[in-house]
Amino acid sequence: MSGHLAVVGLGPGDARYLTAEAADALAAAQALYGYAPYLDRVPAQAGQSRHPSDNREERARAAAALAHAAQGGRVAVVSGGDPGVFAMAAAVCEEIEGGPQSWRAIELVVVPGITAMLAVAARIGAPLGHDFCALSLSDNLKPWALIERRLDAAAGAGFVIALYNPVSRARPWQLPRAIERLRRHLPASTPVVFGRAVARAGEEVRVATLAAAHEEPADMATLVIVGSRETRVIARSGRPPLVYTPRAAEVSA
Amino acid sequence: MSGHLAVVGLGPGDARYLTAEAADALAAAQALYGYAPYLDRVPAQAGQSRHPSDNREERARAAAALAHAAQGGRVAVVSGGDPGVFAMAAAVCEEIEGGPQSWRAIELVVVPGITAMLAVAARIGAPLGHDFCALSLSDNLKPWALIERRLDAAAGAGFVIALYNPVSRARPWQLPRAIERLRRHLPASTPVVFGRAVARAGEEVRVATLAAAHEEPADMATLVIVGSRETRVIARSGRPPLVYTPRAAEVSA
Repeated sequence: MSGHLAVVGLGPGDARYLTAEAADALAAAQALYGYAPYLDRVPAQAGQSRHPSDNREERARAAAALAHAAQGGRVAVVSGGDPGVFAMAAAVCEEIEGGPQSWRAIELVVVPGITAMLAVAARIGAPLGHDFCALSLSDNLKPWALIERRLDAAAGAGFVIALYNPVSRARPWQLPRAIERLRRHLPASTPVVFGRAVARAGEEVRVATLAAAHEEPADMATLVIVGSRETRVIARSGRPPLVYTPRAAEVSA
Repeated sequence: MSGHLAVVGLGPGDARYLTAEAADALAAAQALYGYAPYLDRVPAQAGQSRHPSDNREERARAAAALAHAAQGGRVAVVSGGDPGVFAMAAAVCEEIEGGPQSWRAIELVVVPGITAMLAVAARIGAPLGHDFCALSLSDNLKPWALIERRLDAAAGAGFVIALYNPVSRARPWQLPRAIERLRRHLPASTPVVFGRAVARAGEEVRVATLAAAHEEPADMATLVIVGSRETRVIARSGRPPLVYTPRAAEVSA
């Protein structure tokens, strides 16, 4: 009766970026839990129950999936991108730690996926080609002062910075504030990549400078990559520019 | 005659972690370039030429593939993991920037893959569940002083740290030195995950503490994840422990 729970990464959207491992884990599940728009990406299958939930309900969703699996079921929780990066795998672990002992007996499998920063980087060249960090701009679960401290540390030490959750309807000012903060550390000409809905309908990838980045539209479907002092732009006639960070770096970075 | 070059991520190893997009890009190529052990992972195909090269020859490999594509061919460069993370996509961009104008006319496509830190994290829970960075410990292309500065910045600001290229035959002391450096910032009990050959033959995942991490064996096939002050270990009877970083953080981190 110990059950099985798979936390499955769907990748950026298009099924062409799903791994075989993920597709099989979804097909083998008796029950699927997830944020409704992510569940909608999974083909319907006879005999499989579906349990959609709202965006902000990660803990309740994780607990419901664990309770289901603990009864002996084969359950999958779907996650956009990679489940381990600002997504459902940590929420499931939190619930296991705080939940009944029986939840620790469940066979937990995390199936990795292509996380947004990899998909956006691939579309524009190789902006993550050297040391980089991934930082969520959501201050729902951490104070804004900590986010600023991390922006300072990362930019100051020469990391390229991938910004997850840059904007939501309830968080309109965080991205402009972060851009402004990063200008303390980085030249105005630093390349900033905006990737929206990459590998989904309406995909859009734009390159701005740090000085002009506040003029770029961004929403919940956007991932932002802020270059380091080393990041370069290659102009190409008749093709979009390439943005990349060389593999070599100097100590002055 | 502008040609086509795909830089394709193979993921951690097992073909079950390859995306359909990557498999199709490999099948469509007339010529494959890559580090020999990565090329060996790609099924042979009639009429497709293969150009294996050595580990340290990224620039020459990138230039050869670009020259081939510039003659109008359909060429793929294979990369372990994700080509944009310490891999071939940046090397190709470097060669395009420094090469003839005709290389800028090539249609360049980067196909993302599951990079090692995502594969290792998935096997052990969700250690990358909150803000994290990826740092190469190779000082072939950057000075060791810069690596130490980045370790200080990342650990001091509460990022989880994924260490790529922790050890090679020519670089035996860098990982112990990095572990020692991180002890200035993090408690002795901080969890450290060693993932070796994940999703390949001989896979091994171990959890140590920062105090004992120098005793763990590591090699070129190893990826190391050093937790933050927030990273937690969940003991499970009859199952391996889970390591995860909660989604919430305090300003004291």
